[in-house]
Amino acid sequence: MPLREKSLIARIRRQARGSPAVVAGIGDDCAILRPPPGHELLVTTDFTLEDVHFRRQWHPPEVVGRRCLTRGLSDIAAMGGEPLAVFLSLALPKRLPQKWVDRFLHGLLELANAFKVPLAGGDTAQSATGIQADIIVLGSVPKGAAVLRSGARTGDQIYVTGELGGSAAALARLRSGKVKVRPAEYQQHFHPTPRLEVGRWLRRRGLASAMIDLSDGLSTDLAHLCEESCVGAVIEAGLIPPARVGRPPADVSLDLSLHGGEDYELLFTSSGRIPATIAGIPVTRIGQITRTRGMTLISQDGRWERLAVHGWEHFR
Amino acid sequence: MPLREKSLIARIRRQARGSPAVVAGIGDDCAILRPPPGHELLVTTDFTLEDVHFRRQWHPPEVVGRRCLTRGLSDIAAMGGEPLAVFLSLALPKRLPQKWVDRFLHGLLELANAFKVPLAGGDTAQSATGIQADIIVLGSVPKGAAVLRSGARTGDQIYVTGELGGSAAALARLRSGKVKVRPAEYQQHFHPTPRLEVGRWLRRRGLASAMIDLSDGLSTDLAHLCEESCVGAVIEAGLIPPARVGRPPADVSLDLSLHGGEDYELLFTSSGRIPATIAGIPVTRIGQITRTRGMTLISQDGRWERLAVHGWEHFR
Repeated sequence: MPLREKSLIARIRRQARGSPAVVAGIGDDCAILRPPPGHELLVTTDFTLEDVHFRRQWHPPEVVGRRCLTRGLSDIAAMGGEPLAVFLSLALPKRLPQKWVDRFLHGLLELANAFKVPLAGGDTAQSATGIQADIIVLGSVPKGAAVLRSGARTGDQIYVTGELGGSAAALARLRSGKVKVRPAEYQQHFHPTPRLEVGRWLRRRGLASAMIDLSDGLSTDLAHLCEESCVGAVIEAGLIPPARVGRPPADVSLDLSLHGGEDYELLFTSSGRIPATIAGIPVTRIGQITRTRGMTLISQDGRWERLAVHGWEHFR
Repeated sequence: MPLREKSLIARIRRQARGSPAVVAGIGDDCAILRPPPGHELLVTTDFTLEDVHFRRQWHPPEVVGRRCLTRGLSDIAAMGGEPLAVFLSLALPKRLPQKWVDRFLHGLLELANAFKVPLAGGDTAQSATGIQADIIVLGSVPKGAAVLRSGARTGDQIYVTGELGGSAAALARLRSGKVKVRPAEYQQHFHPTPRLEVGRWLRRRGLASAMIDLSDGLSTDLAHLCEESCVGAVIEAGLIPPARVGRPPADVSLDLSLHGGEDYELLFTSSGRIPATIAGIPVTRIGQITRTRGMTLISQDGRWERLAVHGWEHFR
């Protein structure tokens, strides 16, 4: 095992100590976890690949690490779950500076520590080319209480947390190559926060009939939710909360709010009373579930049009 | 999402149905699992990277798929665990023929089905270059019953399952490039089988004080076990069972048996009575645990020498 892998594993081992869910096994063939009794287990895995999900010249290593873990934690949030433990498979090219790895782990662990979830193991390898990370998050939820994508019913209202399109706006600006992009002006892209408290709040109160996280963009993720629930949706353009980015802050376009990915906000449906903020995060009603399949957008001037799915395709 | 990813997810979804451990959630943000009550959870993740762990011109896709899953199941075997569910993160280059993916999955699922473990989810992505797979296996073991690397005690005998060095022998032959390598003559490399039954048998009877799987090679993995157990070891060269490969079958060299990786046999220690075969697999005593740290090799002619660790470094 190369020295770097040894030190990485040693570092993970130190970090994983002291979590009640991690029994033993770091440095063993498997990690051993003890999920809370009466709970079901949630499992999600997500790749973060160089030149697909990030670029070294655009994204500081801390940001890559934070975004990598955000992807996994956001999936746990979308089920209303509690994160139990994180596993990281990390393949690194031979000539990558150690400093990059340290800063990547710093960004990842800062977010892990904020949500008190231990990095409990993983794998390291030398990659033939590029940086490849696979983040695995295990979570738990009381038996039968997970909020699925499939529970939306006709007449349920549709809600989103936070603001939409900010992450895609940063990427559009990075792509244009003309201007400096200040991370502080594009927080959703450079410093995303998974909505774990909101997901948990909704699950505890049984208020969300269906939920999904906004990783692929509103139009794509709403389509997933509708497909799993066998329903349709009507969305009002004027209700969608646009992200405010840049300096001076300005609203992103409707196009970015509708189709931009990687905001890691939550999209959920409910027939109950939803407050204007949950766990400090603004929650906005944007439309309604319909019996008729398909998605409709009501434009600002009142026209009804079909809402097409524009897949989020990273850098392609 | 590209068409291929959709069809891959649809395929995983069909395949995952009907397992008692997988509650729901395929096609949701997370998979939902229900581990057996009173059990602890085992988690292992392993990368399989093109040009690091396999080469397309050397390894048929079915073999890559089988070896990919073997890596994970072998870790579960080494804890004495039962596999619960498999997750696969798979990044594929744009121009990879669909046939390759189908054959890869066929090899992986054939092994999964043989051990009745469902493929319960994962992630798919387009890779910037090369094929990257990360296999995640979740397993379970009754609370407190996992066989760790750290339990070896002075005087315990050291055992291995099967024969050693066969996988490295195949790789050496592939590397030489001079001769055709017939998979049938190198089963350990092209058709490895994780020793789940042996691991389970030992755990149920409480017969193994420590256990590890032979993925990095005997010298490296024995060193891991000794380090975790704070002990040393004496190994007898004449007792190590060499793999028989090629046609006519011939023993591999001692060097390959000692240092060759990826045999996926089990190495364990015991103070009890160990039969000559367990679950149909030959088990061989190869040495003894010592109080004195460090590893010693007794050669065929009775000389004692220090056993050095030769790390298994794939194609490097």
